[in-house]
Amino acid sequence: MGIIKNFEGLISNGLTDGDKRARAICLNVLKRTLEEINPINMIKSSVKRNGSILNIGSLTLNLDDFKRIYLVGFGKASHLMALAIEQLIGDRISRGFINVLKGVEFKSLTGRVEFIEASHPIPDFSGQRGAEEIMRIVSEASEHDLVICLISGGGSAMTPMPADGISLEEKQQVTQLLLKSGANINEFNAVRKHISAFKGGLLAKYAYPARVLSLIISDVVGDRLDVISSGPTSPDTSTFQDVYHVLIKYNLWGRIPESVRRRIEAGLKGEVEETPKPGDKIFEKVHNFIVGSNRLACKIAVKTANELGLNSAILSSVVEGEARHVGTVYGGILVEEALENNPIDKPATIIAGGETTVTVKGSGIGGRNQELILSASMKIQGLENVAIASIGTDGVDGLTDAAGAIADGKTVQRTIEANLDPKEYLDNNDSYRFFKKLGDLIFTGPTGVNLMDITIMVALK
Amino acid sequence: MGIIKNFEGLISNGLTDGDKRARAICLNVLKRTLEEINPINMIKSSVKRNGSILNIGSLTLNLDDFKRIYLVGFGKASHLMALAIEQLIGDRISRGFINVLKGVEFKSLTGRVEFIEASHPIPDFSGQRGAEEIMRIVSEASEHDLVICLISGGGSAMTPMPADGISLEEKQQVTQLLLKSGANINEFNAVRKHISAFKGGLLAKYAYPARVLSLIISDVVGDRLDVISSGPTSPDTSTFQDVYHVLIKYNLWGRIPESVRRRIEAGLKGEVEETPKPGDKIFEKVHNFIVGSNRLACKIAVKTANELGLNSAILSSVVEGEARHVGTVYGGILVEEALENNPIDKPATIIAGGETTVTVKGSGIGGRNQELILSASMKIQGLENVAIASIGTDGVDGLTDAAGAIADGKTVQRTIEANLDPKEYLDNNDSYRFFKKLGDLIFTGPTGVNLMDITIMVALK
Repeated sequence: MGIIKNFEGLISNGLTDGDKRARAICLNVLKRTLEEINPINMIKSSVKRNGSILNIGSLTLNLDDFKRIYLVGFGKASHLMALAIEQLIGDRISRGFINVLKGVEFKSLTGRVEFIEASHPIPDFSGQRGAEEIMRIVSEASEHDLVICLISGGGSAMTPMPADGISLEEKQQVTQLLLKSGANINEFNAVRKHISAFKGGLLAKYAYPARVLSLIISDVVGDRLDVISSGPTSPDTSTFQDVYHVLIKYNLWGRIPESVRRRIEAGLKGEVEETPKPGDKIFEKVHNFIVGSNRLACKIAVKTANELGLNSAILSSVVEGEARHVGTVYGGILVEEALENNPIDKPATIIAGGETTVTVKGSGIGGRNQELILSASMKIQGLENVAIASIGTDGVDGLTDAAGAIADGKTVQRTIEANLDPKEYLDNNDSYRFFKKLGDLIFTGPTGVNLMDITIMVALK
Repeated sequence: MGIIKNFEGLISNGLTDGDKRARAICLNVLKRTLEEINPINMIKSSVKRNGSILNIGSLTLNLDDFKRIYLVGFGKASHLMALAIEQLIGDRISRGFINVLKGVEFKSLTGRVEFIEASHPIPDFSGQRGAEEIMRIVSEASEHDLVICLISGGGSAMTPMPADGISLEEKQQVTQLLLKSGANINEFNAVRKHISAFKGGLLAKYAYPARVLSLIISDVVGDRLDVISSGPTSPDTSTFQDVYHVLIKYNLWGRIPESVRRRIEAGLKGEVEETPKPGDKIFEKVHNFIVGSNRLACKIAVKTANELGLNSAILSSVVEGEARHVGTVYGGILVEEALENNPIDKPATIIAGGETTVTVKGSGIGGRNQELILSASMKIQGLENVAIASIGTDGVDGLTDAAGAIADGKTVQRTIEANLDPKEYLDNNDSYRFFKKLGDLIFTGPTGVNLMDITIMVALK
């Protein structure tokens, strides 16, 4: 069973031995991948210690070069990432502070890392107090010190720290207006960073002239450093000018709080400092290092599939788009694999990652992974010895208690026998009820780490 | 230049040498693929003659076994397919009749193949007269005869032959009602076949007991024989019962013409004969053989890319879905290929086929291939030495004079410099004007053959 709670049941839903085998491979690969991508493993695979030497990828740091080492962190995985760092170099940590997700347990191994609980996705004052404490600590650090910064998904909402003169409520008002405006993610982030005292490279600025090592678990497609948790240790390319244009473009200038308008006006006049830009000297002291990403999860899945004796390939780890259409494309790829042995030789496992979206038009219950698989199941109808499964690595697909779903070439046949019309369920965005009736929902419970989604396609001989 | 009229211009639109090389490979592969997939080539690659022996795949026919050989055909490629057959076995053809697309030129090599012009996509009486003539000829054939039947895209509209008691207008009325109803393709075809005297295996039935060899160019995703041109020589699995349920489901029973209702009622009572079903003895005498398909085009593209020294793979030849989302997925695959060398080693060419759709919401001009590439261009923004192109193999993408479009990693940069917002054009379904301004539309003119769409992704080192 392991991390997939209904493992055996999902396999036995296959109508033939070949379908069962294909299902078992899907589920085994997902299971082992989920086991390996916990934050403690990710830190320990990336950060190696040998005496006083720390190797992170091609970067080498000598711990003896630093007078003090500070540890800060935020995001949904911060408690586990901090635990891993304390296990590795707890003896050298002078002081730490992390914002952990409300409700998770944290006990500092060394007793020197304090924490506060912060709420997600709606920020709270506890999160703000934590963000302020983190800023206070990194400001203490001198040029002889090292700041280790642990960043993971949810980190932005969990460190709400409005710029001077703006209240948390006013900042949230702007966020709400932007969410409804149709602004794209770059426009959204430009505004957010310019009304924050934490994001857009400001954490790095406060830490300067200390050396900064940011260890990052990415939950955004493409792993852009300035996007993950709004890039607190990454240069910001956007300006107050951009912010002004965005607010005019979406007709929000007159609707944002007075305090925010005043700050942006001051920024336009150069009376308020810009966020640090690429090339700024502070970034000479900063190392941003991605320890976990969807691509890593895809690589683990491919490795696992190889160990199970299958040929395997990563199709992409940056897939976005409407779930039902992505599902149709994946279905088409699996058809080709099953019938024509393309793009790789059978027995084949094709792994795809990223994060799709669902435009809700119906009144059903579902998630992007479940909807993707529902759509794919119609495309692979009739195939033998194949299976396709998709999950959110955080174990939570949409607003459901399932992580995702699995289907094979007989799924549609089973639905006909059960008097379910797949197209009707798809049109109603009701993938959860559809797969619930078939017993093909994948349940893991929350995994505590979000590397977005993994889809696995299997075609056996 | 060859079949792509603006070949050199499209290459020189690349901003760097690497982009130009990637573009040139895309265009060369497309060009050579289009050259090879003309109907004459497709017939000659599949049908080989050696004296009196005809080999078609694993099937062998001895022409001397037949007293007479009849040739019939319909669809947009019928004139070229007929020419190829006349070149191969003109000496043995007793008589023939084909429905050719209105406006194309046909002159029988042997003088023994007559023709009529039929309109597409709106059927006309000329097409009906041709269909009746074809039925008359195949009815003449005895068990000692061979009927060669040439089927290609558009064949259904070009052989309108309503069942007894139904007029062409009434049949078209039903088609219009179904088109607007939201019925899926299977439901649509069930109805169409049961009010026709030609489709759903009826041509094979009329030809019985003659031997029938159908040579088919498929223009439908998945190459289902009962779907291509509504399967005139293929068994039909749908029944009058199904037809009745479809008409009730979409609330059309009271709205279809009286003559159609009467026929279906008679069918339900068993007073009108069903279409021939799988297992019917008439199909023992029928050989359906696909001589051209999207998969064939993909294979030619892969072969060509290999000859150009690239690693290459077919991703799928059965992709469907909303063009913009498929474009995003392909973009994601190209990102992975460029950055991570997945799923195959660079220099890489990935070929995908099928046919996408566009749900029009804006007021722009465009086609599915152009919209797919517009969407993909946003995803591949910033990549180097890559290109992606997509065309309709018939040379006509949507309601435009272009076959498709090409983009590379600098396309979005070029649009910013030209003050074009890709997202705005995409939202307005205005891909044609977008690529026209960039000079990146691909022009071939109508090619006379439709194997659906080909997308090619290239990533160089």
